[in-house]
Amino acid sequence: MITGKLIGVGLGPGDPDLMTVRAARLISGASVLAYPALPGTESFARQIASRYISEGSHEIVIEIPMTKERGPAQAAYDLGAGRIAEALDLGRDVVVLCEGDPFFYGSFMYLHARLAGRYDVDVVPGVTSVNASAARLQHPLAARNDVFAVIPAPLDNPSIRERIASADSFAILKVGSHLGRIRDLLCELGLADRSQYIERATLSEETRMTLAEAPDPAPYFSMILVSKGVDPWLKTQS
Amino acid sequence: MITGKLIGVGLGPGDPDLMTVRAARLISGASVLAYPALPGTESFARQIASRYISEGSHEIVIEIPMTKERGPAQAAYDLGAGRIAEALDLGRDVVVLCEGDPFFYGSFMYLHARLAGRYDVDVVPGVTSVNASAARLQHPLAARNDVFAVIPAPLDNPSIRERIASADSFAILKVGSHLGRIRDLLCELGLADRSQYIERATLSEETRMTLAEAPDPAPYFSMILVSKGVDPWLKTQS
Repeated sequence: MITGKLIGVGLGPGDPDLMTVRAARLISGASVLAYPALPGTESFARQIASRYISEGSHEIVIEIPMTKERGPAQAAYDLGAGRIAEALDLGRDVVVLCEGDPFFYGSFMYLHARLAGRYDVDVVPGVTSVNASAARLQHPLAARNDVFAVIPAPLDNPSIRERIASADSFAILKVGSHLGRIRDLLCELGLADRSQYIERATLSEETRMTLAEAPDPAPYFSMILVSKGVDPWLKTQS
Repeated sequence: MITGKLIGVGLGPGDPDLMTVRAARLISGASVLAYPALPGTESFARQIASRYISEGSHEIVIEIPMTKERGPAQAAYDLGAGRIAEALDLGRDVVVLCEGDPFFYGSFMYLHARLAGRYDVDVVPGVTSVNASAARLQHPLAARNDVFAVIPAPLDNPSIRERIASADSFAILKVGSHLGRIRDLLCELGLADRSQYIERATLSEETRMTLAEAPDPAPYFSMILVSKGVDPWLKTQS
Protein backbone atom coordinates (compact mmCIF):
# COMPACT_ATOMS: atom_id res chain seq x y z
CA MET A 1 0.00 0.00 0.00
CA ILE A 2 1.19 3.53 -0.73
CA THR A 3 1.59 5.40 2.54
CA GLY A 4 0.03 8.80 3.13
CA LYS A 5 1.78 12.14 3.40
CA LEU A 6 2.40 14.08 6.60
CA ILE A 7 1.47 17.73 6.07
CA GLY A 8 2.42 20.28 8.72
CA VAL A 9 0.26 23.35 8.26
CA GLY A 10 1.00 26.73 9.85
CA LEU A 11 -2.19 28.46 11.02
CA GLY A 12 -0.82 31.91 11.72
CA PRO A 13 -1.14 33.85 14.97
CA GLY A 14 -4.79 33.29 15.85
CA ASP A 15 -7.13 35.26 13.59
CA PRO A 16 -8.39 32.63 11.11
CA ASP A 17 -8.17 35.23 8.33
CA LEU A 18 -4.40 35.21 8.75
CA MET A 19 -4.16 31.61 7.64
CA THR A 20 -2.71 31.16 4.16
CA VAL A 21 -4.95 30.28 1.21
CA ARG A 22 -3.15 26.91 0.98
CA ALA A 23 -3.65 26.15 4.69
CA ALA A 24 -7.38 26.85 4.42
CA ARG A 25 -7.66 24.61 1.35
CA LEU A 26 -5.68 21.75 2.90
CA ILE A 27 -7.73 21.83 6.11
CA SER A 28 -11.04 21.94 4.21
CA GLY A 29 -9.99 18.91 2.17
CA ALA A 30 -8.45 16.90 5.01
CA SER A 31 -10.03 13.63 6.07
CA VAL A 32 -7.52 13.12 8.91
CA LEU A 33 -6.38 15.99 11.14
CA ALA A 34 -4.00 15.95 14.10
CA TYR A 35 -3.32 18.73 16.59
CA PRO A 36 -1.85 19.36 20.04
CA ALA A 37 -3.92 20.31 23.08
CA LEU A 38 -3.15 21.02 26.71
CA PRO A 39 -4.79 18.32 28.83
CA GLY A 40 -8.39 19.18 29.62
CA THR A 41 -8.56 22.29 27.41
CA GLU A 42 -9.78 23.00 23.92
CA SER A 43 -6.93 23.00 21.41
CA PHE A 44 -5.97 26.54 20.36
CA ALA A 45 -4.82 25.19 16.99
CA ARG A 46 -8.22 23.58 16.43
CA GLN A 47 -9.98 26.81 17.41
CA ILE A 48 -8.04 28.77 14.78
CA ALA A 49 -8.79 26.20 12.09
CA SER A 50 -12.35 25.34 13.11
CA ARG A 51 -14.23 27.22 10.39
CA TYR A 52 -12.41 25.19 7.74
CA ILE A 53 -12.70 21.71 9.30
CA SER A 54 -15.09 19.43 7.40
CA GLU A 55 -17.73 17.48 9.26
CA GLY A 56 -16.82 13.85 9.52
CA SER A 57 -13.06 14.36 9.37
CA HIS A 58 -11.14 12.12 11.74
CA GLU A 59 -9.32 14.07 14.47
CA ILE A 60 -6.24 12.88 16.36
CA VAL A 61 -5.83 14.94 19.54
CA ILE A 62 -2.31 14.91 20.98
CA GLU A 63 -2.44 15.91 24.64
CA ILE A 64 0.87 17.47 25.66
CA PRO A 65 1.43 17.81 29.42
CA MET A 66 3.15 21.09 30.42
CA THR A 67 5.71 19.77 32.88
CA LYS A 68 9.19 21.02 33.66
CA GLU A 69 10.76 17.64 32.86
CA ARG A 70 10.68 16.74 29.20
CA GLY A 71 9.88 13.05 29.62
CA PRO A 72 6.08 13.28 29.79
CA ALA A 73 5.84 15.57 26.74
CA GLN A 74 8.21 13.35 24.80
CA ALA A 75 6.10 10.29 25.67
CA ALA A 76 3.03 12.19 24.44
CA TYR A 77 4.75 12.98 21.13
CA ASP A 78 5.75 9.31 20.79
CA LEU A 79 2.15 8.30 21.28
CA GLY A 80 0.84 10.99 18.91
CA ALA A 81 3.39 10.12 16.24
CA GLY A 82 2.35 6.47 16.56
CA ARG A 83 -1.29 7.30 15.95
CA ILE A 84 -0.39 9.53 12.98
CA ALA A 85 1.84 6.76 11.57
CA GLU A 86 -1.09 4.35 11.72
CA ALA A 87 -3.20 6.64 9.53
CA LEU A 88 -0.26 7.20 7.15
CA ASP A 89 0.27 3.44 6.90
CA LEU A 90 -3.37 3.10 5.90
CA GLY A 91 -2.64 5.40 2.99
CA ARG A 92 -4.30 8.50 4.42
CA ASP A 93 -2.69 11.94 4.33
CA VAL A 94 -2.58 13.57 7.76
CA VAL A 95 -2.81 17.35 8.16
CA VAL A 96 -1.15 18.51 11.39
CA LEU A 97 -2.45 21.86 12.64
CA CYS A 98 0.31 24.14 13.94
CA GLU A 99 -0.16 27.51 15.67
CA GLY A 100 1.95 30.17 13.95
CA ASP A 101 4.63 28.60 11.77
CA PRO A 102 5.45 24.87 12.04
CA PHE A 103 9.24 25.32 12.39
CA PHE A 104 9.22 28.39 14.67
CA TYR A 105 8.94 27.31 18.34
CA GLY A 106 6.22 24.82 17.44
CA SER A 107 5.30 21.34 18.60
CA PHE A 108 5.17 20.07 15.00
CA MET A 109 8.96 19.81 15.06
CA TYR A 110 8.73 16.94 17.56
CA LEU A 111 6.33 15.01 15.33
CA HIS A 112 8.47 15.81 12.28
CA ALA A 113 11.56 14.40 14.03
CA ARG A 114 9.72 11.15 14.69
CA LEU A 115 8.13 10.70 11.25
CA ALA A 116 10.15 12.52 8.57
CA GLY A 117 12.56 9.67 8.00
CA ARG A 118 9.78 7.22 7.19
CA TYR A 119 7.11 9.21 5.38
CA ASP A 120 6.76 11.92 2.75
CA VAL A 121 6.43 15.30 4.40
CA ASP A 122 5.18 18.71 3.25
CA VAL A 123 5.32 21.83 5.38
CA VAL A 124 3.20 24.93 4.80
CA PRO A 125 4.72 27.99 6.45
CA GLY A 126 2.57 30.38 8.47
CA VAL A 127 2.54 33.96 9.72
CA THR A 128 4.40 34.05 13.05
CA SER A 129 3.21 35.85 16.18
CA VAL A 130 6.25 38.12 15.78
CA ASN A 131 5.14 39.42 12.39
CA ALA A 132 1.54 39.64 13.57
CA SER A 133 2.53 41.63 16.66
CA ALA A 134 4.61 44.00 14.54
CA ALA A 135 1.64 44.58 12.22
CA ARG A 136 -0.73 45.27 15.11
CA LEU A 137 1.73 47.58 16.87
CA GLN A 138 2.80 49.19 13.57
CA HIS A 139 6.35 48.48 14.66
CA PRO A 140 8.92 48.05 11.85
CA LEU A 141 11.03 44.98 12.72
CA ALA A 142 14.05 45.42 10.48
CA ALA A 143 15.23 47.42 7.48
CA ARG A 144 18.30 47.31 5.23
CA ASN A 145 21.20 45.64 7.10
CA ASP A 146 19.57 45.48 10.54
CA VAL A 147 20.10 42.32 12.56
CA PHE A 148 16.86 41.07 14.06
CA ALA A 149 16.80 38.60 16.98
CA VAL A 150 14.13 36.54 18.68
CA ILE A 151 14.91 36.11 22.38
CA PRO A 152 12.92 33.88 24.77
CA ALA A 153 12.29 35.60 28.13
CA PRO A 154 13.10 32.52 30.29
CA LEU A 155 16.84 32.95 29.52
CA ASP A 156 18.86 34.51 32.34
CA ASN A 157 19.74 38.22 32.36
CA PRO A 158 23.40 37.90 31.29
CA SER A 159 22.34 35.81 28.25
CA ILE A 160 19.59 38.25 27.33
CA ARG A 161 21.93 41.24 27.66
CA GLU A 162 24.46 39.62 25.35
CA ARG A 163 21.76 38.85 22.76
CA ILE A 164 20.37 42.38 22.92
CA ALA A 165 23.88 43.79 22.49
CA SER A 166 24.27 42.06 19.14
CA ALA A 167 20.89 42.94 17.61
CA ASP A 168 19.48 46.17 16.18
CA SER A 169 15.92 45.12 16.83
CA PHE A 170 14.45 42.21 18.74
CA ALA A 171 11.34 40.41 19.97
CA ILE A 172 11.09 38.94 23.46
CA LEU A 173 8.83 35.89 23.48
CA LYS A 174 7.31 33.76 26.25
CA VAL A 175 7.21 36.78 28.56
CA GLY A 176 4.63 35.43 31.06
CA SER A 177 5.99 35.39 34.61
CA HIS A 178 9.25 37.02 33.46
CA LEU A 179 7.68 40.38 32.68
CA GLY A 180 8.96 42.25 35.77
CA ARG A 181 12.54 41.09 35.32
CA ILE A 182 12.54 41.84 31.57
CA ARG A 183 11.03 45.28 32.13
CA ASP A 184 13.70 46.13 34.71
CA LEU A 185 16.39 44.98 32.32
CA LEU A 186 15.03 47.05 29.40
CA CYS A 187 14.78 50.12 31.67
CA GLU A 188 18.36 49.63 32.81
CA LEU A 189 19.49 49.43 29.18
CA GLY A 190 17.63 52.65 28.36
CA LEU A 191 15.31 50.81 25.99
CA ALA A 192 11.97 51.17 27.79
CA ASP A 193 10.83 54.01 25.51
CA ARG A 194 11.65 51.94 22.46
CA SER A 195 9.65 48.94 23.67
CA GLN A 196 6.06 48.01 22.87
CA TYR A 197 4.01 45.32 24.59
CA ILE A 198 1.17 43.26 23.14
CA GLU A 199 -0.82 40.26 24.31
CA ARG A 200 -3.01 37.85 22.31
CA ALA A 201 -2.15 39.62 19.03
CA THR A 202 -4.90 39.40 16.37
CA LEU A 203 -7.43 37.74 18.73
CA SER A 204 -10.55 39.57 19.89
CA GLU A 205 -9.00 39.93 23.37
CA GLU A 206 -5.85 41.57 21.96
CA THR A 207 -4.37 44.25 24.24
CA ARG A 208 -1.56 46.68 23.39
CA MET A 209 0.17 48.91 25.89
CA THR A 210 3.38 50.58 26.89
CA LEU A 211 5.93 48.50 28.75
CA ALA A 212 5.22 50.51 31.92
CA GLU A 213 1.53 49.53 31.82
CA ALA A 214 2.09 45.84 31.07
CA PRO A 215 0.72 43.41 33.68
CA ASP A 216 3.10 41.34 35.84
CA PRO A 217 2.83 38.42 35.40
CA ALA A 218 1.87 38.74 31.75
CA PRO A 219 -0.27 36.09 30.05
CA TYR A 220 1.47 33.29 28.13
CA PHE A 221 0.65 34.79 24.73
CA SER A 222 2.47 38.09 25.17
CA MET A 223 5.44 39.71 23.47
CA ILE A 224 7.69 42.75 23.70
CA LEU A 225 9.08 44.33 20.52
CA VAL A 226 12.08 46.64 20.76
CA SER A 227 14.02 48.65 18.17
CA LYS A 228 17.28 50.04 19.51
CA GLY A 229 17.59 52.71 16.89
CA VAL A 230 15.32 53.71 14.08
CA ASP A 231 16.63 54.35 10.57
CA PRO A 232 16.11 58.15 10.27
CA TRP A 233 14.37 57.54 6.94
CA LEU A 234 11.80 55.45 8.80
CA LYS A 235 10.79 58.15 11.27
CA THR A 236 7.11 58.88 10.93
CA GLN A 237 6.42 62.43 9.79
CA SER A 238 3.55 63.17 12.16
CA MET B 1 -14.51 64.47 3.08
CA ILE B 2 -13.54 61.36 5.03
CA THR B 3 -10.07 60.26 3.96
CA GLY B 4 -9.31 56.69 2.91
CA LYS B 5 -7.29 54.11 4.78
CA LEU B 6 -3.77 52.98 3.93
CA ILE B 7 -3.60 49.18 4.03
CA GLY B 8 -0.19 47.50 3.85
CA VAL B 9 -0.70 43.89 2.80
CA GLY B 10 1.96 41.19 3.14
CA LEU B 11 1.93 38.83 0.14
CA GLY B 12 4.18 36.09 1.49
CA PRO B 13 7.31 34.68 -0.17
CA GLY B 14 6.16 34.31 -3.77
CA ASP B 15 3.76 31.39 -4.21
CA PRO B 16 0.34 33.11 -4.40
CA ASP B 17 -1.13 30.26 -2.32
CA LEU B 18 0.98 31.43 0.61
CA MET B 19 -0.88 34.73 0.79
CA THR B 20 -3.25 34.99 3.75
CA VAL B 21 -6.99 34.69 3.29
CA ARG B 22 -7.31 38.35 4.35
CA ALA B 23 -4.70 39.53 1.86
CA ALA B 24 -6.46 37.74 -0.98
CA ARG B 25 -9.80 39.26 0.01
CA LEU B 26 -8.42 42.80 0.38
CA ILE B 27 -6.67 42.66 -2.98
CA SER B 28 -9.77 41.30 -4.75
CA GLY B 29 -11.86 44.11 -3.31
CA ALA B 30 -9.35 46.92 -3.82
CA SER B 31 -10.16 49.71 -6.23
CA VAL B 32 -6.77 51.39 -5.72
CA LEU B 33 -3.54 49.39 -5.46
CA ALA B 34 0.04 50.61 -5.05
CA TYR B 35 3.24 48.60 -5.31
CA PRO B 36 6.99 49.01 -5.81
CA ALA B 37 8.83 48.01 -8.97
CA LEU B 38 12.42 48.16 -10.13
CA PRO B 39 12.65 50.59 -13.06
CA GLY B 40 11.86 48.87 -16.33
CA THR B 41 10.85 45.53 -14.80
CA GLU B 42 7.57 43.91 -13.86
CA SER B 43 6.80 44.34 -10.16
CA PHE B 44 7.42 41.09 -8.22
CA ALA B 45 4.74 42.14 -5.72
CA ARG B 46 2.24 42.58 -8.52
CA GLN B 47 3.15 39.19 -9.99
CA ILE B 48 2.44 37.46 -6.66
CA ALA B 49 -0.91 39.22 -6.30
CA SER B 50 -1.96 39.17 -9.96
CA ARG B 51 -4.57 36.41 -9.78
CA TYR B 52 -6.53 38.41 -7.20
CA ILE B 53 -6.36 41.86 -8.84
CA SER B 54 -9.72 43.01 -10.21
CA GLU B 55 -9.98 44.38 -13.70
CA GLY B 56 -10.40 48.11 -13.68
CA SER B 57 -8.62 48.69 -10.37
CA HIS B 58 -6.39 51.76 -10.37
CA GLU B 59 -2.70 50.90 -9.98
CA ILE B 60 -0.02 53.22 -8.60
CA VAL B 61 3.42 51.92 -9.59
CA ILE B 62 6.26 53.22 -7.43
CA GLU B 63 9.54 52.84 -9.29
CA ILE B 64 12.39 52.49 -6.80
CA PRO B 65 15.90 52.96 -8.25
CA MET B 66 18.49 50.54 -6.81
CA THR B 67 21.37 52.93 -6.17
CA LYS B 68 24.02 52.88 -3.45
CA GLU B 69 23.09 56.40 -2.29
CA ARG B 70 19.73 56.61 -0.57
CA GLY B 71 18.65 59.92 -2.08
CA PRO B 72 17.07 58.64 -5.29
CA ALA B 73 15.07 55.90 -3.53
CA GLN B 74 13.92 58.38 -0.89
CA ALA B 75 12.77 60.77 -3.61
CA ALA B 76 10.86 57.89 -5.23
CA TYR B 77 9.12 57.11 -1.90
CA ASP B 78 8.26 60.80 -1.50
CA LEU B 79 6.69 60.79 -4.94
CA GLY B 80 4.88 57.48 -4.34
CA ALA B 81 3.59 58.60 -0.94
CA GLY B 82 2.31 61.78 -2.57
CA ARG B 83 0.33 59.84 -5.17
CA ILE B 84 -1.08 57.51 -2.49
CA ALA B 85 -2.01 60.54 -0.35
CA GLU B 86 -3.95 61.99 -3.27
CA ALA B 87 -6.10 58.85 -3.51
CA LEU B 88 -6.55 58.79 0.29
CA ASP B 89 -7.60 62.45 0.25
CA LEU B 90 -10.23 61.56 -2.35
CA GLY B 91 -11.67 59.10 0.20
CA ARG B 92 -10.33 55.94 -1.43
CA ASP B 93 -8.67 53.15 0.52
CA VAL B 94 -5.28 52.21 -0.92
CA VAL B 95 -3.95 48.64 -0.70
CA VAL B 96 -0.15 48.58 -0.82
CA LEU B 97 1.26 45.23 -2.02
CA CYS B 98 4.30 44.10 0.00
CA GLU B 99 6.50 41.09 -0.75
CA GLY B 100 6.82 38.88 2.35
CA ASP B 101 5.81 40.79 5.47
CA PRO B 102 5.32 44.59 5.40
CA PHE B 103 7.53 45.31 8.45
CA PHE B 104 10.31 42.81 7.73
CA TYR B 105 12.93 44.35 5.40
CA GLY B 106 10.18 45.75 3.19
CA SER B 107 9.71 48.96 1.24
CA PHE B 108 6.28 49.53 2.82
CA MET B 109 8.02 50.88 5.91
CA TYR B 110 9.16 53.93 3.94
CA LEU B 111 5.62 54.68 2.78
CA HIS B 112 4.31 54.05 6.31
CA ALA B 113 6.80 56.56 7.74
CA ARG B 114 5.55 59.20 5.31
CA LEU B 115 1.82 58.60 5.72
CA ALA B 116 1.04 57.02 9.11
CA GLY B 117 0.86 60.31 10.98
CA ARG B 118 -1.81 61.69 8.66
CA TYR B 119 -4.00 58.73 7.72
CA ASP B 120 -5.57 55.64 9.24
CA VAL B 121 -3.36 52.63 8.65
CA ASP B 122 -3.93 48.87 8.78
CA VAL B 123 -1.17 46.32 8.29
CA VAL B 124 -1.75 42.69 7.32
CA PRO B 125 1.24 40.51 8.23
CA GLY B 126 2.59 37.97 5.77
CA VAL B 127 4.67 34.79 5.68
CA THR B 128 8.35 35.79 5.50
CA SER B 129 10.92 34.27 3.15
CA VAL B 130 12.68 32.95 6.28
CA ASN B 131 9.70 30.84 7.34
CA ALA B 132 9.06 29.78 3.75
CA SER B 133 12.68 28.71 3.29
CA ALA B 134 12.58 26.71 6.54
CA ALA B 135 9.43 24.93 5.37
CA ARG B 136 10.91 24.06 1.98
CA LEU B 137 14.22 22.90 3.49
CA GLN B 138 12.44 21.14 6.40
CA HIS B 139 14.80 23.03 8.66
CA PRO B 140 13.54 23.73 12.22
CA LEU B 141 14.34 27.37 13.01
CA ALA B 142 14.02 27.47 16.79
CA ALA B 143 12.65 25.43 19.68
CA ARG B 144 12.19 26.06 23.42
CA ASN B 145 14.62 28.77 24.55
CA ASP B 146 16.67 29.01 21.35
CA VAL B 147 17.69 32.48 20.22
CA PHE B 148 17.07 32.97 16.51
CA ALA B 149 18.75 35.75 14.52
CA VAL B 150 18.33 37.20 11.05
CA ILE B 151 21.65 38.46 9.71
CA PRO B 152 22.08 40.37 6.42
CA ALA B 153 25.08 39.12 4.40
CA PRO B 154 26.36 42.60 3.45
CA LEU B 155 27.59 43.16 7.04
CA ASP B 156 31.35 42.73 7.51
CA ASN B 157 32.85 39.51 8.83
CA PRO B 158 33.58 40.69 12.40
CA SER B 159 29.94 41.85 12.77
CA ILE B 160 28.59 38.60 11.35
CA ARG B 161 30.85 36.52 13.63
CA GLU B 162 29.62 38.39 16.69
CA ARG B 163 25.98 37.92 15.67
CA ILE B 164 26.47 34.22 15.01
CA ALA B 165 28.17 33.83 18.40
CA SER B 166 25.06 35.02 20.21
CA ALA B 167 22.45 32.95 18.33
CA ASP B 168 21.54 29.27 18.43
CA SER B 169 20.11 29.33 14.94
CA PHE B 170 20.18 31.98 12.23
CA ALA B 171 19.23 32.95 8.70
CA ILE B 172 21.59 34.85 6.42
CA LEU B 173 19.67 37.08 4.01
CA LYS B 174 20.64 39.09 0.95
CA VAL B 175 23.41 36.60 0.13
CA GLY B 176 23.90 37.51 -3.56
CA SER B 177 27.49 38.56 -4.29
CA HIS B 178 28.54 37.78 -0.70
CA LEU B 179 28.13 34.03 -1.04
CA GLY B 180 31.82 33.14 -1.30
CA ARG B 181 32.78 35.19 1.74
CA ILE B 182 29.90 33.87 3.84
CA ARG B 183 30.65 30.28 2.84
CA ASP B 184 34.30 30.69 3.87
CA LEU B 185 33.22 32.15 7.18
CA LEU B 186 30.77 29.33 7.92
CA CYS B 187 33.42 26.73 7.02
CA GLU B 188 35.91 28.43 9.33
CA LEU B 189 33.35 28.34 12.16
CA GLY B 190 32.74 24.64 11.56
CA LEU B 191 29.13 25.31 10.56
CA ALA B 192 29.18 24.29 6.88
CA ASP B 193 27.56 20.91 7.61
CA ARG B 194 24.80 22.60 9.56
CA SER B 195 24.00 25.05 6.74
CA GLN B 196 21.39 24.73 4.02
CA TYR B 197 21.07 26.97 0.96
CA ILE B 198 17.93 27.85 -0.97
CA GLU B 199 17.10 30.30 -3.75
CA ARG B 200 13.72 31.57 -4.94
CA ALA B 201 11.90 29.63 -2.20
CA THR B 202 8.32 28.60 -3.14
CA LEU B 203 8.64 29.84 -6.76
CA SER B 204 8.66 27.38 -9.67
CA GLU B 205 12.40 28.06 -10.14
CA GLU B 206 13.18 27.21 -6.51
CA THR B 207 16.56 25.49 -6.02
CA ARG B 208 17.87 23.86 -2.83
CA MET B 209 21.42 22.68 -2.34
CA THR B 210 24.25 22.20 0.10
CA LEU B 211 26.37 25.22 0.91
CA ALA B 212 29.27 23.64 -1.02
CA GLU B 213 27.17 23.47 -4.20
CA ALA B 214 25.73 26.99 -3.95
CA PRO B 215 26.57 29.31 -6.88
CA ASP B 216 28.88 32.30 -6.37
CA PRO B 217 27.55 34.90 -6.84
CA ALA B 218 24.13 33.73 -5.67
CA PRO B 219 20.94 35.33 -7.00
CA TYR B 220 19.35 38.15 -5.02
CA PHE B 221 16.56 35.94 -3.65
CA SER B 222 18.73 33.43 -1.82
CA MET B 223 19.18 32.49 1.81
CA ILE B 224 21.31 30.31 4.08
CA LEU B 225 19.76 28.71 7.17
CA VAL B 226 22.04 27.43 9.93
CA SER B 227 21.38 25.67 13.23
CA LYS B 228 24.41 25.53 15.48
CA GLY B 229 23.14 22.67 17.57
CA VAL B 230 20.02 20.60 17.32
CA ASP B 231 17.91 19.79 20.36
CA PRO B 232 18.50 16.02 20.71
CA TRP B 233 14.74 15.54 20.94
CA LEU B 234 14.47 17.06 17.47
CA LYS B 235 16.87 14.65 15.77
CA THR B 236 15.08 12.82 12.98
CA GLN B 237 14.89 9.07 13.57
CA SER B 238 15.71 7.94 10.05
